[in-house]
Amino acid sequence: MSIRLGLIGGSLLQALAARGHRVVGFDADPATRATARTAAARAAADARWQVAGTVQDAIRRAELVVLAVPLPALPGIFDELADYAGLVTDVTSVKGPVRDLAERQLRLGSFIGGHPMAGKEISGFRAADPKLFDGCAWVLCLDPRATSLPDWLTLATLITSLGARVVPVTADEHDGAVAKISHVPHLLAAALALAVVGDPLAATLAAGSFRDGSRVAATRPELIAAMCAGNRSAVRRVLHDVIGQLDLFEEQLAADDPTAALRPALSLASSTRSAWPPVPGEPTELPIRADVLLRLGRVGGWITAVDKERRKVVAMRPETVRNDS
Amino acid sequence: MSIRLGLIGGSLLQALAARGHRVVGFDADPATRATARTAAARAAADARWQVAGTVQDAIRRAELVVLAVPLPALPGIFDELADYAGLVTDVTSVKGPVRDLAERQLRLGSFIGGHPMAGKEISGFRAADPKLFDGCAWVLCLDPRATSLPDWLTLATLITSLGARVVPVTADEHDGAVAKISHVPHLLAAALALAVVGDPLAATLAAGSFRDGSRVAATRPELIAAMCAGNRSAVRRVLHDVIGQLDLFEEQLAADDPTAALRPALSLASSTRSAWPPVPGEPTELPIRADVLLRLGRVGGWITAVDKERRKVVAMRPETVRNDS
Repeated sequence: MSIRLGLIGGSLLQALAARGHRVVGFDADPATRATARTAAARAAADARWQVAGTVQDAIRRAELVVLAVPLPALPGIFDELADYAGLVTDVTSVKGPVRDLAERQLRLGSFIGGHPMAGKEISGFRAADPKLFDGCAWVLCLDPRATSLPDWLTLATLITSLGARVVPVTADEHDGAVAKISHVPHLLAAALALAVVGDPLAATLAAGSFRDGSRVAATRPELIAAMCAGNRSAVRRVLHDVIGQLDLFEEQLAADDPTAALRPALSLASSTRSAWPPVPGEPTELPIRADVLLRLGRVGGWITAVDKERRKVVAMRPETVRNDS
Repeated sequence: MSIRLGLIGGSLLQALAARGHRVVGFDADPATRATARTAAARAAADARWQVAGTVQDAIRRAELVVLAVPLPALPGIFDELADYAGLVTDVTSVKGPVRDLAERQLRLGSFIGGHPMAGKEISGFRAADPKLFDGCAWVLCLDPRATSLPDWLTLATLITSLGARVVPVTADEHDGAVAKISHVPHLLAAALALAVVGDPLAATLAAGSFRDGSRVAATRPELIAAMCAGNRSAVRRVLHDVIGQLDLFEEQLAADDPTAALRPALSLASSTRSAWPPVPGEPTELPIRADVLLRLGRVGGWITAVDKERRKVVAMRPETVRNDS
């Protein structure tokens, strides 16, 4: 079942229902529950979901609880789940602090942190789309000492069945990576937007590079603040490195030949960006072992299917990385 | 006539020809000249252009020469134009240094720096599009002491006839504004792309905020280096301010309540970005005077038409700015 029927929770509810799973959703907002009930009544008979009136009603017979709430709401929900004995996962963009919360607050359940790299400019149940996860990368945290591998495989099986690519990483590896590719980019976009405050000429001249470079600055500020603060040690480390690179650019601009001084780093940046997104190589089979799975995640690989009986997963790696290694 | 038949030069040639002007193009590359000649032969009879074999042939009877070359090529072309007596403009993204070059190198001609804020991911004559300038902002530099106002109006008339919005500013105001909205954004994008070098996990997890934040890092590095180096004093000043803002974010992340500490700046960034692009108010008429035109540019306004006989221009201002002032 899904707690909170926003974009991610609502999409997940519909995607699982469409695949024949019995699903129950809950949202703290009565209007959202009413919208979801109306949509459920209109859905095809084989894709129906239920909407519960309380968290306790929603989790009563659930084998899996998906917490699709933003980070600041997690402590309250974990409290309600203290005595729930099943499998629990979440979808927030920070995994170390959430793991720590779950360890402290969940007495009986098994927790595996998750993070689908899916989003839209719009949010809410009305934006929900059962195809949202098709092809998206979905991090599932794996701690070789603490995670139950059977539980991890249950979740990985479910998520790959939605068409998502499951990326096995530790919580700390996840947090370092998303600081680079999501949290710090939001701060760079905000700094760029702030550069045109009080400068209407700049705003009038701004075109493509400003538009794209500042786009995510328009995100609700409380969401950016919460995700950066929730991952602050990794965000500070990455931000520090990015500032260091910008300091280098500033020095290079002051060199005798600034064009020549700037070239090497700009060339590396250009070839790196041109090689993105990574192209997957051929699928391979891997044995189901935590160390093997984590090594796959570390080289940018992912899982597209789980074969529990043969104890194998189908794995993909970026082609460039496979050729280099 | 247009010197160099790349994206901007080729588009301009076609746009002017389509409006009945007699135009001649030149490109240093013989293959590009051949492509342009073939396209000219195929064009409608009332939209034909010519392609000259040398710069001197191209400018022989021209009233206006448009230099559509990148910044590093300008000194060589100005040498060839030393004894040309007509009106010269350019389309590069740096205006102060180009003004200085023109002052030193052009003995007879009148120079007015220009910068159309139009671009595409692709370049070259084959990407040329006579509608490229429709609605785009096109800076025309105006120096109240040095610029010939009649020459400026000749250019403004021509450019507004292509559907572009002419923005009157000084070269220094232009260079400060484009450092903010184009040059520094390219450096931020490059720094973001460099953050994922050697981190295939981050590249695999990267989605929308990385994609947009790093997009322009894929630009050819020699172009980014040349434009940042060509405008280095303004770029260093703006980059310094942006680094200062990122330093503040780093401090705020270390605060007791990082969410609260980050909120005010993120809120201002979000409202600024959400209010972009500026919405134009109603058109007004302004007298043709350098100080009036420059004041218009400074508040983010632009000109959509020139009425030389009545000595008026039709001006637009962003609505938000007009309401505030």
